[in-house]
Amino acid sequence: MNNNTFGTAFCLTTFGESHGAAIGGVIDGCPAGILLDKALIEKELSRRKPGQNATMSTRKEPDEVELLSGLFEGNTTGTPIAFVIRNKDAKTSDYENIKDVFRPSHADFTYQEKYGIRDYAGGGRGSARTLLPCVVAGAIAKQILALQDIEIQSNVIQIGEERSAGFSNDDIERILSRFREEKDTVGAVVQGIVKNAPVGIGEPAFQKFHAVLAHAMMNINAAKGFEIGEGFNAARMRGSECNDEFYYDGERIRTRTNHSGGVQGGITNGEDIVFNVAFKPIPSVMLPQKTVDIHGNEKVLEIQGRHDVCVVPRVIPMIEAMAAMVTLDFVLLKKCNKM
Amino acid sequence: MNNNTFGTAFCLTTFGESHGAAIGGVIDGCPAGILLDKALIEKELSRRKPGQNATMSTRKEPDEVELLSGLFEGNTTGTPIAFVIRNKDAKTSDYENIKDVFRPSHADFTYQEKYGIRDYAGGGRGSARTLLPCVVAGAIAKQILALQDIEIQSNVIQIGEERSAGFSNDDIERILSRFREEKDTVGAVVQGIVKNAPVGIGEPAFQKFHAVLAHAMMNINAAKGFEIGEGFNAARMRGSECNDEFYYDGERIRTRTNHSGGVQGGITNGEDIVFNVAFKPIPSVMLPQKTVDIHGNEKVLEIQGRHDVCVVPRVIPMIEAMAAMVTLDFVLLKKCNKM
Amino acid sequence: MNNNTFGTAFCLTTFGESHGAAIGGVIDGCPAGILLDKALIEKELSRRKPGQNATMSTRKEPDEVELLSGLFEGNTTGTPIAFVIRNKDAKTSDYENIKDVFRPSHADFTYQEKYGIRDYAGGGRGSARTLLPCVVAGAIAKQILALQDIEIQSNVIQIGEERSAGFSNDDIERILSRFREEKDTVGAVVQGIVKNAPVGIGEPAFQKFHAVLAHAMMNINAAKGFEIGEGFNAARMRGSECNDEFYYDGERIRTRTNHSGGVQGGITNGEDIVFNVAFKPIPSVMLPQKTVDIHGNEKVLEIQGRHDVCVVPRVIPMIEAMAAMVTLDFVLLKKCNKM
Amino acid sequence: MNNNTFGTAFCLTTFGESHGAAIGGVIDGCPAGILLDKALIEKELSRRKPGQNATMSTRKEPDEVELLSGLFEGNTTGTPIAFVIRNKDAKTSDYENIKDVFRPSHADFTYQEKYGIRDYAGGGRGSARTLLPCVVAGAIAKQILALQDIEIQSNVIQIGEERSAGFSNDDIERILSRFREEKDTVGAVVQGIVKNAPVGIGEPAFQKFHAVLAHAMMNINAAKGFEIGEGFNAARMRGSECNDEFYYDGERIRTRTNHSGGVQGGITNGEDIVFNVAFKPIPSVMLPQKTVDIHGNEKVLEIQGRHDVCVVPRVIPMIEAMAAMVTLDFVLLKKCNKM
Repeated sequence: MNNNTFGTAFCLTTFGESHGAAIGGVIDGCPAGILLDKALIEKELSRRKPGQNATMSTRKEPDEVELLSGLFEGNTTGTPIAFVIRNKDAKTSDYENIKDVFRPSHADFTYQEKYGIRDYAGGGRGSARTLLPCVVAGAIAKQILALQDIEIQSNVIQIGEERSAGFSNDDIERILSRFREEKDTVGAVVQGIVKNAPVGIGEPAFQKFHAVLAHAMMNINAAKGFEIGEGFNAARMRGSECNDEFYYDGERIRTRTNHSGGVQGGITNGEDIVFNVAFKPIPSVMLPQKTVDIHGNEKVLEIQGRHDVCVVPRVIPMIEAMAAMVTLDFVLLKKCNKM
Repeated sequence: MNNNTFGTAFCLTTFGESHGAAIGGVIDGCPAGILLDKALIEKELSRRKPGQNATMSTRKEPDEVELLSGLFEGNTTGTPIAFVIRNKDAKTSDYENIKDVFRPSHADFTYQEKYGIRDYAGGGRGSARTLLPCVVAGAIAKQILALQDIEIQSNVIQIGEERSAGFSNDDIERILSRFREEKDTVGAVVQGIVKNAPVGIGEPAFQKFHAVLAHAMMNINAAKGFEIGEGFNAARMRGSECNDEFYYDGERIRTRTNHSGGVQGGITNGEDIVFNVAFKPIPSVMLPQKTVDIHGNEKVLEIQGRHDVCVVPRVIPMIEAMAAMVTLDFVLLKKCNKM
Repeated sequence: MNNNTFGTAFCLTTFGESHGAAIGGVIDGCPAGILLDKALIEKELSRRKPGQNATMSTRKEPDEVELLSGLFEGNTTGTPIAFVIRNKDAKTSDYENIKDVFRPSHADFTYQEKYGIRDYAGGGRGSARTLLPCVVAGAIAKQILALQDIEIQSNVIQIGEERSAGFSNDDIERILSRFREEKDTVGAVVQGIVKNAPVGIGEPAFQKFHAVLAHAMMNINAAKGFEIGEGFNAARMRGSECNDEFYYDGERIRTRTNHSGGVQGGITNGEDIVFNVAFKPIPSVMLPQKTVDIHGNEKVLEIQGRHDVCVVPRVIPMIEAMAAMVTLDFVLLKKCNKM
Repeated sequence: MNNNTFGTAFCLTTFGESHGAAIGGVIDGCPAGILLDKALIEKELSRRKPGQNATMSTRKEPDEVELLSGLFEGNTTGTPIAFVIRNKDAKTSDYENIKDVFRPSHADFTYQEKYGIRDYAGGGRGSARTLLPCVVAGAIAKQILALQDIEIQSNVIQIGEERSAGFSNDDIERILSRFREEKDTVGAVVQGIVKNAPVGIGEPAFQKFHAVLAHAMMNINAAKGFEIGEGFNAARMRGSECNDEFYYDGERIRTRTNHSGGVQGGITNGEDIVFNVAFKPIPSVMLPQKTVDIHGNEKVLEIQGRHDVCVVPRVIPMIEAMAAMVTLDFVLLKKCNKM
């Protein structure tokens, strides 16, 4: 099954394990004739790079992307764009001690049960690092969307108990360093916004815009919740307060409020698409944890190595990337709605 | 595009509009040799039937399902199972007055913009009624899962501001009648549980169990949020409290807590799969609302007709149906993980 | 698996058995805003109707199609178009005698082995009658293609040992009546042509125009061979004679010859798309045949009932229908090649 | 669209152009726990290597495959297996002269028309070299099939006017050298056989075994025809001679003849699967040819460089590879037919 493929018209297939030779992807369906700026891809990747500050994994990865196909003199040709990112700082020996032990709330146990075999080094295919190809594809999608003035933004709006309309990087670092000191980790909520979203994209009944967006976001490591517009808050509301009144602004039909988050009936209405994604704390705490090994024997695990304290800030470009891919996908699919 | 198809191995294609001739579906990939109990399908449909009490739509629909194919002497044959449910109490004339008017927070505007044409009667394809085929397919999936002792349950845990571990039908009716009196509607949260879930189902990277489940749930009309396990609450937690400790119970490896909601790394770990879905208030409030017509002219809308006050209780069999379909799909897909 | 779905952008899901309640289909992805002429659908169906002359099955089927969804005031709305054709003259008792016997070169044995159960009446899902929904979908595709002046044609070019540039219906009837008298059946070759085909449709590497066309045609019952352009004859040729020289006709680039059959590298070049499909003789001969039953016991089978002598002329609308679906599919997909 | 993906359960996505940085692929859905022999992959690739004798392209490509993911200590892990083959002997300058000229019966014109841009070096994505990833995936599929004693074989049965039950390599070389001397090329027919094929694989209605096999084969460069069993010859036959009589051999039900080519109703019957693929002559003849350039101006083209005289023998491992992939795919899919 192509379970490692995401998207319908603009679709990405990813591959690679945390400590294998390389990770990478193949983008199929990228429209032809678009001049890509490789620097913008690298810029997005650098936002996800580890080791940028004290609360991040200290793994040193240059994360250089090599584009292998699908481009001619810098332009997309309509054929698949393949790319690889080599794993450089991959010390499999770091993980010898967890070879037979299941880290709590990691995917070690479930991979082992599912496949009867697993690449334990660095979490193998379950590692968040394996999402890097999405950042590459997202960076390309962003460039194409930018041609239509569509922009993807994001904000950290919650870390642990603290909420804000948007934390600065310094805020995030300050909060996280406290958890780092306590050898613990913490959860977060990130808000994503598609600005200047087109009207009429999303494909009911089963490829509703927000349903596919939820699917995309929940695929991100550690994601545990998704909401669009008012989300869970809508459950508290009355119809008379939650409904978005239509009006005509002189150019087009708009809504005065945006409780819907830009989507009605699974199709965008031209307002900003606003959604939140909740993440659990990273399970790699530095405190001792009880668990079992592959044979069911009790073990006390002390995780070593290089780990983030929280998915933010490194998850941010991932969220934007997935949102960009989903949006571009639906922009393309819309072309088939009429002759 | 087969945007009206859901599922990979066990897959359902739906069709139909609220006030057209019929709604229905085709199930492709149902395993052969299973004796189906049609009464169990009808039982699920009856749970979704309108007009059961004062806060529900008074539309009278017998909702009789006719099975057209894929069965031989009551057994599945492995070929597509098609079925239709005729629309009987479909008065298109009821909707003449909204023919050119966009109801706030309904899909009228977005369908019109997307396709340049829409079937306005009863919301057309955007109507919640079009989800009925999912209930049929879910009822079949439930029967197959039951052969492996897998069971789907659900509970209403929030209506408006009121929260509970599980409301009774009388509780629900009491709460909703208050909103009905005020000509208003209200949101809700429903919890779903897959009991006795198998280990090792879900297909990373992009068909993670909870990602596909989110996709399924967000396709349900009025759904605005999804969470698995601790969900949004996980954002407040520390790793040391959110992690699920492994232990061996003498038969198999279990977790002492279930903050994960039964899924780790997108693959089930054998614990209950627990998830919540948040719904906005039904947008058909009986109060006058400002809006515009198809030409952008301001209008005051007074919705007539037969509408629910809240998605609960009628959405409950829908949630169970989608959960059953997703679970069965992954049970089948797992067969291909090894030779 | 949606193995009963064909097409990517314009896609058809079919269902139904020869002697079940009904056969039918769901078309997903039909562009919105197209006024359909139902009479043209019925006209295509009538071309496939049995009992039109002495060498055809005498089964009496009115083959009335009921459109259930996806249309509003006669126009496509972009939502799924579902339809059913009821089986009327379905006498299951006619097939009691072959309930446990495998008819040679029919699909009885393989269905039984695959699924462990089969609907034996009239060949069940294996019957050519189950292709009728393709004729409906093809009739719709033809109407949409006609808006761009694209037309599908076909010719019988071989029956048994006799070859011709195109047999008339009288020719066909004359030839076939000879085999009917001898209680035997015979094979045939049909040529299909897409006239006024657009340039640039077909999606390499794996959805090449002629590869998908071959896939479509080989799905038709009794099809054993497919060729495009020179086909098998090309194996005899030299490059210097088989190559199609390009020239400019004052308006566009053309080829002087069309050995390629309108496709180069899997993409159409704007010349007529010309292909042949070879069919084996219908296996239901009226002569006694040796075979075995479900337990492996030897049996002598004498097929009764109502059978065609040859797939032509009834297969012709099927070929055209599949060609129309494939062509329209690729016309839609091409929209996504550029922004 | 994932048009560069082939297969459902065992699926391959390919990328790369003839003269780009690399070609390669991603295999998704390879069952876990299989020890792969890389030498067998290299052996298959070496069968396709150019420059092995006088009638082949003299391009020097080491064609070393690097496996990037999906393996752990030599075993498949169930995660995607990605691989790259670097293009080494890629002189883009060789193709400067055809930059603006359309080679007759090549894909230059159609790619240009479709995408508005093309990588002209070596035929870009249209080059037969881009099929090399299929050989890698096929070599892996063969290893897995071998575990069930399923074997893929092939024979050249026709070159130009000469036919044989199977040409030796020396025969082929002798025949081809004559065309090479005349600066011309020639077509061929290759027969493929799946030995020891399992019963009950293939998924009607639209994923019939032979339909998908036809699809696979027609995707191979220069393929113009496909037939299974008697193929086009079946059109000449009577039912009484073409039908395959069933008998019981003491162990299982067999057919005395195999006119069907191992497939009935789109499902395998356990006999050898026998099919033929017809190829046109390679269009790169060394003789001068009339054509036009991108602006429609008449040109005389004299193709230089390194070209094969015929698709055989180099196409043979491709045919086997595609047959192996299709067979393995259906073996996996069959697992879902029953619970």
